[in-house]
Amino acid sequence: MAKTDYRASGVDIDAGNEAVRRIRNLARATYTSGVLSGVGSFGGLFALDPAIKDPVLVASADGVGTKLKLAFMTGVHDTIGADLVNHCVNDILVQGARPLFFLDYLATARLAPDVAEQIVRGMSRACVENGCALLGGETAEMPGFYAAGEYDVAGFIVGVVSRSRIIDGRTIEKDDVLIGLPSTGLHTNGYSLARRVAFDMLGLGVGDVVPELGEALGAALMRTHRSYLPAIGPLLDRGWIKGMAHITGGGLTENTPRMLPEGRSFLLDRDSWTVPPLFRWLGDAGQLDEAEMFRAFNMGVGLVLACAPSHRDPLLSALAPAGAWPLGHVV
Amino acid sequence: MAKTDYRASGVDIDAGNEAVRRIRNLARATYTSGVLSGVGSFGGLFALDPAIKDPVLVASADGVGTKLKLAFMTGVHDTIGADLVNHCVNDILVQGARPLFFLDYLATARLAPDVAEQIVRGMSRACVENGCALLGGETAEMPGFYAAGEYDVAGFIVGVVSRSRIIDGRTIEKDDVLIGLPSTGLHTNGYSLARRVAFDMLGLGVGDVVPELGEALGAALMRTHRSYLPAIGPLLDRGWIKGMAHITGGGLTENTPRMLPEGRSFLLDRDSWTVPPLFRWLGDAGQLDEAEMFRAFNMGVGLVLACAPSHRDPLLSALAPAGAWPLGHVV
Repeated sequence: MAKTDYRASGVDIDAGNEAVRRIRNLARATYTSGVLSGVGSFGGLFALDPAIKDPVLVASADGVGTKLKLAFMTGVHDTIGADLVNHCVNDILVQGARPLFFLDYLATARLAPDVAEQIVRGMSRACVENGCALLGGETAEMPGFYAAGEYDVAGFIVGVVSRSRIIDGRTIEKDDVLIGLPSTGLHTNGYSLARRVAFDMLGLGVGDVVPELGEALGAALMRTHRSYLPAIGPLLDRGWIKGMAHITGGGLTENTPRMLPEGRSFLLDRDSWTVPPLFRWLGDAGQLDEAEMFRAFNMGVGLVLACAPSHRDPLLSALAPAGAWPLGHVV
Repeated sequence: MAKTDYRASGVDIDAGNEAVRRIRNLARATYTSGVLSGVGSFGGLFALDPAIKDPVLVASADGVGTKLKLAFMTGVHDTIGADLVNHCVNDILVQGARPLFFLDYLATARLAPDVAEQIVRGMSRACVENGCALLGGETAEMPGFYAAGEYDVAGFIVGVVSRSRIIDGRTIEKDDVLIGLPSTGLHTNGYSLARRVAFDMLGLGVGDVVPELGEALGAALMRTHRSYLPAIGPLLDRGWIKGMAHITGGGLTENTPRMLPEGRSFLLDRDSWTVPPLFRWLGDAGQLDEAEMFRAFNMGVGLVLACAPSHRDPLLSALAPAGAWPLGHVV
């Protein structure tokens, strides 16, 4: 019987430690004033700002979905982390929360420290941009779970909002206005369908330039999920925004109703925006049903917010640099 | 060209919604007084108890590692969630924090709602036991990432400790006493090595009864990761515990030093406890090097705490029902 050890069984603790060292440096670059560093080395510690009145923590967990397959195909690993952070930031922003800290879970068959570093570099950059500390995370080597060169990554975010500033849509009423903010691309949803169309049905590669898109498919599909915090953050204390919906899996069809009170519905003015070429091209190439597309893709709308008619113009004006337009109304 | 839709591409939003419904009910059962329910349906909201003076949030992310393979082999999915919750609870407990809330990330190729329900049932039960709210989570269908019937799961926990009660090991000094608390088994570490020995080298199955263990291999390897909160929680405000180490990946060898100040080391009294049969059997069967075993496995010690010699007896007495013994000292 052969002698075995932990390395032979597929787990390399030393390589893990090297990755942890690099990741720690990227994390330190994101530390905000709340982070208590240098106290122990287990969980991450974060002191809540005592100036926040009646603080409510808002937490969310998410992944990047099969957009990861695009990262594997293109070899680009330094934007996936930003996709994940920005997705999480938006998920708590819709309730009025500003991010405090983020943690990640990165799982792979065998850790390639340079790939791990690229992934965390993207997280670190996005955390800095969102004023959010990368407080910790777990890097798991799981032999036999993931294909060579593949990984999965999940993000966890905690933000804070004063209880009186929670945005929950409960005051939304008939004739309130819906405002849209543009997405940058697929964000992190609809990739299984998009890959099926582009790669399985059309047989294209990530390097192929699609005339309708004017760029390589890989570049179009890898565009980073947008954070709406820079646009929305300065408006949170105005009290104009009654509700928000981050358009993720389920699309406009399933996410918009989530911000509405019981008994309310919405009408979108479908002529108010031009569905971006990427979605139109996917729909044409895959002969996709439009209703299905509106559930699978964001169709160019990354965030929807609701306000009273009287706040429509000031909001549109404040959000003009972010690309806002009147998208529809509540019925 | 065939017409495609989201379901054909491997993502079933309706099955996902059904699982979300079941999971939501299991989550509700864990809600503590801090949870603000019924406010929107995006992120989870948690109001911090205003009675906590100078609150510091302590957060940690973790997975279950390849113990999941045992769940797949045995078909037992209702304890993995408890493994994950208890692991996370211990990770923040060592800094003096009590858990507030937990979120999970569950990823699979195609969601089997009954398996998802079993996994979350285990989380829900453990959350209740630890007084921790299951505040949210993400259930991701990732076609092409996971083998049929397999999944990965990650947990994220946030707890709180008053700043003056943070346990960080900084006052640990020479001759301080180390106290051990027993593990219930492998907990969630060393499974790649254990599986290699038991299944690859010995060719055993999970149903095989190992005479040295007096039970089936699957039962021995699936034993739930223990939460040390019930034992340690009541002692947190006494100020007796100077430092704690949760013995996870890296074993006693790598985790014990993490609680010690720079320049301090430790000596374990190796005669102070009997390494449980499971570890001895794995070592004998795999001809494992002892140093390697002490890095891969917890060797029967799940938690180590440090105290001044004057607090040794009261701590041992208070922790006697939890199985505590004097494990060594600081040098």
